[in-house]
Amino acid sequence: MRPVMLGIDIGGTNTAYGFVDEDGGIVYSGDIPTLAEEGAEKLLERLADVTSKGMAKLGDEVQLCGVGIGAPNGNYYTGNIENPPNLGWPTVPFARMMSKKLSLPVAITNDANATAIGEKYFGAARDMENFVVITLGTGLGSGIYVNNELVYGEDGFAGELGHTCVQVKGRDCACGNQGCLETYVSATGLKRTAFELLARRTGKSPLREKTFNSLSGQQIAEFALAGDTIAREAFQITGEYLGVALANAAAFSRPEAFILFGGMAAAGELIVNPTYLAMERHLLAVYRGKINIITSALPGSSAAVLGAAALAWNEAKNTGEANSGL
Amino acid sequence: MRPVMLGIDIGGTNTAYGFVDEDGGIVYSGDIPTLAEEGAEKLLERLADVTSKGMAKLGDEVQLCGVGIGAPNGNYYTGNIENPPNLGWPTVPFARMMSKKLSLPVAITNDANATAIGEKYFGAARDMENFVVITLGTGLGSGIYVNNELVYGEDGFAGELGHTCVQVKGRDCACGNQGCLETYVSATGLKRTAFELLARRTGKSPLREKTFNSLSGQQIAEFALAGDTIAREAFQITGEYLGVALANAAAFSRPEAFILFGGMAAAGELIVNPTYLAMERHLLAVYRGKINIITSALPGSSAAVLGAAALAWNEAKNTGEANSGL
Repeated sequence: MRPVMLGIDIGGTNTAYGFVDEDGGIVYSGDIPTLAEEGAEKLLERLADVTSKGMAKLGDEVQLCGVGIGAPNGNYYTGNIENPPNLGWPTVPFARMMSKKLSLPVAITNDANATAIGEKYFGAARDMENFVVITLGTGLGSGIYVNNELVYGEDGFAGELGHTCVQVKGRDCACGNQGCLETYVSATGLKRTAFELLARRTGKSPLREKTFNSLSGQQIAEFALAGDTIAREAFQITGEYLGVALANAAAFSRPEAFILFGGMAAAGELIVNPTYLAMERHLLAVYRGKINIITSALPGSSAAVLGAAALAWNEAKNTGEANSGL
Repeated sequence: MRPVMLGIDIGGTNTAYGFVDEDGGIVYSGDIPTLAEEGAEKLLERLADVTSKGMAKLGDEVQLCGVGIGAPNGNYYTGNIENPPNLGWPTVPFARMMSKKLSLPVAITNDANATAIGEKYFGAARDMENFVVITLGTGLGSGIYVNNELVYGEDGFAGELGHTCVQVKGRDCACGNQGCLETYVSATGLKRTAFELLARRTGKSPLREKTFNSLSGQQIAEFALAGDTIAREAFQITGEYLGVALANAAAFSRPEAFILFGGMAAAGELIVNPTYLAMERHLLAVYRGKINIITSALPGSSAAVLGAAALAWNEAKNTGEANSGL
């Protein structure tokens, strides 16, 4: 029997799950609508349901040893999902509830941390002890490894580089502050920069035909690749902000590499090149030429589930329960 | 026989040393001129000399078990002092040389890291696993604990918050970059801010009688305490920059506390109050009201030696050599 972990990624719309073996092989997977409005208890029941079905289908082939969950505001220390912004729940002791339901150890953390653990176990960071994963989506998340351990800080909520201030009295952020990194570096930040440039520049651009609400980061990338100068400048500026932020993070923990993950990371050189140049320019001389910026080595579609499963594998390793088959 | 460690703090002008027991008691101490121009080998010989004298004087009362050194650009991993800015040396394998000379284990790190280890062993951070020490002198140094370990990063030079960028295209820094935290937050940064204010404001101030070169941070503090509005505003602005930087560091590792150390920390509320207010304003809501800013609990005059000795005690603890009396 092959030991596997159940990885679950709870998103605002869909919840993905998969049974993942120790090498990152996905044995069985699927997704269900989150239906957050029905409450956490209902989601739990439906997850238990698909888990049973999966186990029934796989039969004696596998042994399910534990569960890892990536969720917005998932707190590793408490096992709670704490006032999740997209789910509209109060604080819910999700890990404990699930552990009771399945009689298995359950660990939880937020999405960006789960992604970092995924990179460590199955992705680009397998041989790294010090690295930082930056997840670029609607916002900017981060997961940080220092001395071969994920940084949770005093209360489980460390690693929020999206809310470091990169511009005093800068753009309004949903968190209530101003000038946060994610207001400049994220799909939304890129769009805000593009619109700022539409105001500042006079040149023609297909961006002038787009509404703010309809425009996606993906479209800006396409315009940039097709040669639109405003779209290109938007990426340039975004990369410069990210580069400064990475240089600042480097002064903190001197990682081996920064790993970019998510939609905007898929833009590749468009974002990586200006980021790298700005980072190098702002790095302390002693770090220069020594820190890589790479893109994720996890398959985009299943990265979140792999990350969540890696959390469970990491727990098993730390507690030594993997071998005892708990 | 009481086991002790020799703590050595190599400075540009003086080198202080002391035999320190496990409780931070200083059994014997002194200092010698560094005379960097004579080279590292000579300093080593003179240090070996005073060590022998100390041992002779203490006799069987103590057993010297190891050496810890705090030095500019001291690299924990390599044991080298690497191109130390104030000493004018090339890279010197100081730990190895000293270890050979004294036949004792020798560890080295930079001054700010040694201070952080000192706070952990003998100061304000005894019960903390996650904290950041900020040393405020001519420049700004930092030593960071994450998960109960000092953060050295990939190559021993992590923890340089003084060179995080807090103002894009801001003040010139000696490191070659612009806008580094230490150009705003340090004795020199405070002075630069005071001079900027002398240009911006019109009010009377005793600061208008001072040359840039003759003015000290201590004097600005005295003027501020005596009610001078420009001096007070200089502290206010300095604290605001520091507060933003601490909020950014909090988003990285969510420490229990920031510990301020050094000359400017002695200004107490003058610097702590505006720093705390700015930090709170810039913190992510989930961290607010939970992170302290405190001043060092190490005695200023012997803090550097205590920190260096704490490094040696930490090594002994990690390698289990303390008990074997190596």
